[in-house]
Amino acid sequence: MKIAILGTGTVGQTLAARFVGLGHEVMMGTRNVAETSARNTRDNYGGPSFVEWHAGNKQVKLGTFDQAAAFGEILFNVTQGHHTLRALQLAGEVNMNGKILVDVSNPLDFSKGMPPILIPELCNTNSLGEEIQRTFPGVKVVKALNTMWCGIMVNPGMISGGDHHAFICGNDEKAKSQVTKLLEQFGWKAENIIDLGDITAARGTEMLLPVWLRIMGKVGNGAFNLKVVK
Amino acid sequence: MKIAILGTGTVGQTLAARFVGLGHEVMMGTRNVAETSARNTRDNYGGPSFVEWHAGNKQVKLGTFDQAAAFGEILFNVTQGHHTLRALQLAGEVNMNGKILVDVSNPLDFSKGMPPILIPELCNTNSLGEEIQRTFPGVKVVKALNTMWCGIMVNPGMISGGDHHAFICGNDEKAKSQVTKLLEQFGWKAENIIDLGDITAARGTEMLLPVWLRIMGKVGNGAFNLKVVK
Repeated sequence: MKIAILGTGTVGQTLAARFVGLGHEVMMGTRNVAETSARNTRDNYGGPSFVEWHAGNKQVKLGTFDQAAAFGEILFNVTQGHHTLRALQLAGEVNMNGKILVDVSNPLDFSKGMPPILIPELCNTNSLGEEIQRTFPGVKVVKALNTMWCGIMVNPGMISGGDHHAFICGNDEKAKSQVTKLLEQFGWKAENIIDLGDITAARGTEMLLPVWLRIMGKVGNGAFNLKVVK
Repeated sequence: MKIAILGTGTVGQTLAARFVGLGHEVMMGTRNVAETSARNTRDNYGGPSFVEWHAGNKQVKLGTFDQAAAFGEILFNVTQGHHTLRALQLAGEVNMNGKILVDVSNPLDFSKGMPPILIPELCNTNSLGEEIQRTFPGVKVVKALNTMWCGIMVNPGMISGGDHHAFICGNDEKAKSQVTKLLEQFGWKAENIIDLGDITAARGTEMLLPVWLRIMGKVGNGAFNLKVVK
């Protein structure tokens, strides 16, 4: 399958490498290809620079947002939440219409310091997932994977035998079942993917971030996830 | 121990009955004792009316908010979030100062229909727990138990052998350890009570409510909880 990853940070790198490993064709999209190709600074978490990462993952194509959106049969949004709508405008509605956009991002606002808050206009009575769906009504937005560290997204079995939950929501049932199949390729068991309903459920999954960040502070790293027990 | 339960709804009834069963002395506080004593309508969930419930739980005293606050060595706030600050003003700062107030409530706003949102001024950059602590600086506010159905609060073993998590936060370490001991009386294992830090962590636990409500819709009832797996 041809998969577009919109965004080139750690989450995008993790998803791109995993999809290539599964035999998919992947193009990452960025605002400025020359700038991204030359990015040799390490991220905040000490991971490799884009240059280092890409040297080890040469099968991943790099293009502009609109090239990637045109390329992909299915799109993943992994841009930072406060850049997402601008990035998707650059990706181009015409390139995205009719396709599935998996929104993995969170509307984090770092402008007031740490820990981040959620962008107020995208919280409680709205969400990033809904805002994307409203802005691009022809795109099938599926909110997924935004409630965990990227290492767990692509390899749920790395903790507790994969016995924990991913949440998914969106307005298009067929789109959700296609995304579920992709998550199964990562190792998610179908019964551990909880469909919370339409895209307004993104409010709930995005509002998990503040407690997630607190739990991360307690655990000491991101290698944990939530499980619904009953 | 003398325990005050501020609020007379289902959560308050559940906590009061459990504490009496554990041998504590309990007084519930309400705005209008005569009105509460005569309340013979069932709640939204079909549970018993207050009259029916109290007939089966006669050891629970009923007083005004300020009588209960004066009576209790430790206080529980189980009023509805949009009434909490008014109820605590009635309880009286002088009756609460120096005591632990366990805040179990959530700032739910039903005024815009279902599902409820969080009260905007008590969400994201603030929380009900913080607002209580700010309004009553002499009270030791501990946010706890607000992330689950009351049946689970008092009997964690009813699901999955009690193998799931409660979150706790607050500015006073000693207060948190006393509340932890009370939760242990309910059956919580100390290692399943996660201390998320100071009272600002209440933002995170209160913001869990929207996804909790969605999960409840999916599960079909409140007999579930979250577990942090790693």
